[in-house]
Amino acid sequence: MEPYQIITLLTDFGLRDGFIGVMKGVMRQIAPGVQFIDMSHELPHYSIIAAAFLNERTFSYFPTGSVHLCVVDPGVGTSRRMLVMETRGHRFVAPDNGLLTPLFDTEEKVEIISADNPRYWLEKISNTFHGRDIFSPLAAHLARGVNLHDLGQPITDPVRIPYPYPKITDDQIQCTIVYIDQFGNCVTNLDQNTFNHWLHSHSYLYSRIQIRWETGQLVGLSHSYGEKEIGDVVAVFDGFDHLELAVNNDSASRKLSLELGSSISITPV
Amino acid sequence: MEPYQIITLLTDFGLRDGFIGVMKGVMRQIAPGVQFIDMSHELPHYSIIAAAFLNERTFSYFPTGSVHLCVVDPGVGTSRRMLVMETRGHRFVAPDNGLLTPLFDTEEKVEIISADNPRYWLEKISNTFHGRDIFSPLAAHLARGVNLHDLGQPITDPVRIPYPYPKITDDQIQCTIVYIDQFGNCVTNLDQNTFNHWLHSHSYLYSRIQIRWETGQLVGLSHSYGEKEIGDVVAVFDGFDHLELAVNNDSASRKLSLELGSSISITPV
Amino acid sequence: MEPYQIITLLTDFGLRDGFIGVMKGVMRQIAPGVQFIDMSHELPHYSIIAAAFLNERTFSYFPTGSVHLCVVDPGVGTSRRMLVMETRGHRFVAPDNGLLTPLFDTEEKVEIISADNPRYWLEKISNTFHGRDIFSPLAAHLARGVNLHDLGQPITDPVRIPYPYPKITDDQIQCTIVYIDQFGNCVTNLDQNTFNHWLHSHSYLYSRIQIRWETGQLVGLSHSYGEKEIGDVVAVFDGFDHLELAVNNDSASRKLSLELGSSISITPV
Repeated sequence: MEPYQIITLLTDFGLRDGFIGVMKGVMRQIAPGVQFIDMSHELPHYSIIAAAFLNERTFSYFPTGSVHLCVVDPGVGTSRRMLVMETRGHRFVAPDNGLLTPLFDTEEKVEIISADNPRYWLEKISNTFHGRDIFSPLAAHLARGVNLHDLGQPITDPVRIPYPYPKITDDQIQCTIVYIDQFGNCVTNLDQNTFNHWLHSHSYLYSRIQIRWETGQLVGLSHSYGEKEIGDVVAVFDGFDHLELAVNNDSASRKLSLELGSSISITPV
Repeated sequence: MEPYQIITLLTDFGLRDGFIGVMKGVMRQIAPGVQFIDMSHELPHYSIIAAAFLNERTFSYFPTGSVHLCVVDPGVGTSRRMLVMETRGHRFVAPDNGLLTPLFDTEEKVEIISADNPRYWLEKISNTFHGRDIFSPLAAHLARGVNLHDLGQPITDPVRIPYPYPKITDDQIQCTIVYIDQFGNCVTNLDQNTFNHWLHSHSYLYSRIQIRWETGQLVGLSHSYGEKEIGDVVAVFDGFDHLELAVNNDSASRKLSLELGSSISITPV
Repeated sequence: MEPYQIITLLTDFGLRDGFIGVMKGVMRQIAPGVQFIDMSHELPHYSIIAAAFLNERTFSYFPTGSVHLCVVDPGVGTSRRMLVMETRGHRFVAPDNGLLTPLFDTEEKVEIISADNPRYWLEKISNTFHGRDIFSPLAAHLARGVNLHDLGQPITDPVRIPYPYPKITDDQIQCTIVYIDQFGNCVTNLDQNTFNHWLHSHSYLYSRIQIRWETGQLVGLSHSYGEKEIGDVVAVFDGFDHLELAVNNDSASRKLSLELGSSISITPV
């Protein structure tokens, strides 16, 4: 095993009931020196899309060679497949339910394996806790250097979820709320590069852009949360370069009646 | 100290106020290379029975040699004893308030020490935070290789809590809700081996078993949460092999009016 | 880098949205072997005073050489400075917003640097997530041995917050609630040494001290939470030696209508 080998964990299991601790115990038995970094265990229960979005935004901040264990798994106990995948030196372990869709879409060279070789699972498999019995052992074996191809067969038909991408025309961008954070900030699927390219190729002005949602609108993007007064709505590119609607010191989701899937339109004034 | 030595932590201290961080700081000063794995810090406040149940279900997933620090301690500042205990190569540190009862009951060979040697505590002992001042140093000294017997005197009369076990007759199993998880799933004290033995020795059928609670009943056990429709009640053996009542995508505790101590009866139809 | 080098983390970012995970990923890329200990990520949002208090109470429980990363940063995206500071072998990284005030006030020898050398930041700086882009790299570079002075220029005028200290006269101590923990326990700025000195130099009796708040009073200090009945108010010196008002098994904040800044007076009866 590489020194300082990392496994990141992204689940909806919560931190209260010992599930995550037990998964780490299982992994430490297989890969003794491995280090864990928790991404989140408080994702909305069974929200594959939130997990997909968070995983895609964050994995590249970790060292090459890291293993990313992503378990949001409403299909546990059914016959859904278990995937391991590699791209740019990062390895991912997840149920075959669409969680890795954004990587299938954006990464150039991906290898996807259906990890059906039970030799790399725990001996006893429960019906309700594959996070511990299958996914954790898979991640730990990858971490200690087992080859992707030992874990199962390559596949080309992983399950995909309808993952929304912005619709762009000359005079409008139509985007969608794809993540709502714990503060109620509403994150869209529009990234800054895409926006800037549209803005500059049409010579629109940053300060003369209208952002419209079902119940309201504002004109002009901000550079930080603090630019507006407390209670005001801010449209800002967030730390992961996605357009976000926030309310200074309040929940944009509640105050603007925005939810996952809500549509946002962007037009020059 | 062994390389990759682990201390697990199970408390009701919460993660908000720095208590756990400070305990880890104290332990890292005594045992510099030790690694921490958090089991839970969000247990119901002062619930010794929840801690007892969670500890007993989870410890064996960790490598032999691990130290398990369990601090749910309503008696802090009183004269209750501090215990260290060993069984099957695992070491436990806990207040003498019954938290380790399931281990006293089920483990064949246990050694229990009243850890009254202040040489292995911090120098200054507060009245309200023995988790930091006594229990953490004890765990860290065990982790770095100090012998159990150096920490105090063997005892044979640890405090026990009335820990419920199922009552089994030819035509009925009477069990009890002993844990309610963050999703409201209600876990009983009935494990799958005990149930299967009863089922097969009487030639009952898995699908012809009635599960009854005060306000309702269902017939037939499921193999996974997803077998029923959203909102339906499911009886399923969970990831730790205990019978659990769950409601698909809802809280069984709230929906079925179940709480800790609620009685569940199991009969052939 | 020292073996077993620790970085502690204290933020108001929450654990749900992957912010902390990403910060750790960034730090592990710069300082591969570093170990993380989370102090809290659930502080009241934007509460500099809660962070200041918690940091000052806890840092000295960690090994000398530890780096303490403290990010509560309402001014992110504005021109506020970024500080690194050293005292007694501990290094601190924080925005220049007063978070380190208690250390400026109580530590004898401090070195404060305005960390304006972008060589030790990430290459790309967002407007909204300096925790990842600036503060994490600074902490990681300190952890791997970079000298404080390489990070920027010494300053002597860091921002201070009005941090309350108790007012002491012969017949009264006036103190203030400066922290309310997750259980609703209300912690004052009065430490036990100060109190004991006042008590003994005036020959007052521990049991004949009146503690008064706006809506009530009690006479006599307790030694532990458990000394009183459930629901009773307790005045006790807590694990960090500060006077605390607690209600046995309930929230003192709610039950006694206490909040941050509430005044408490202490007099002999």
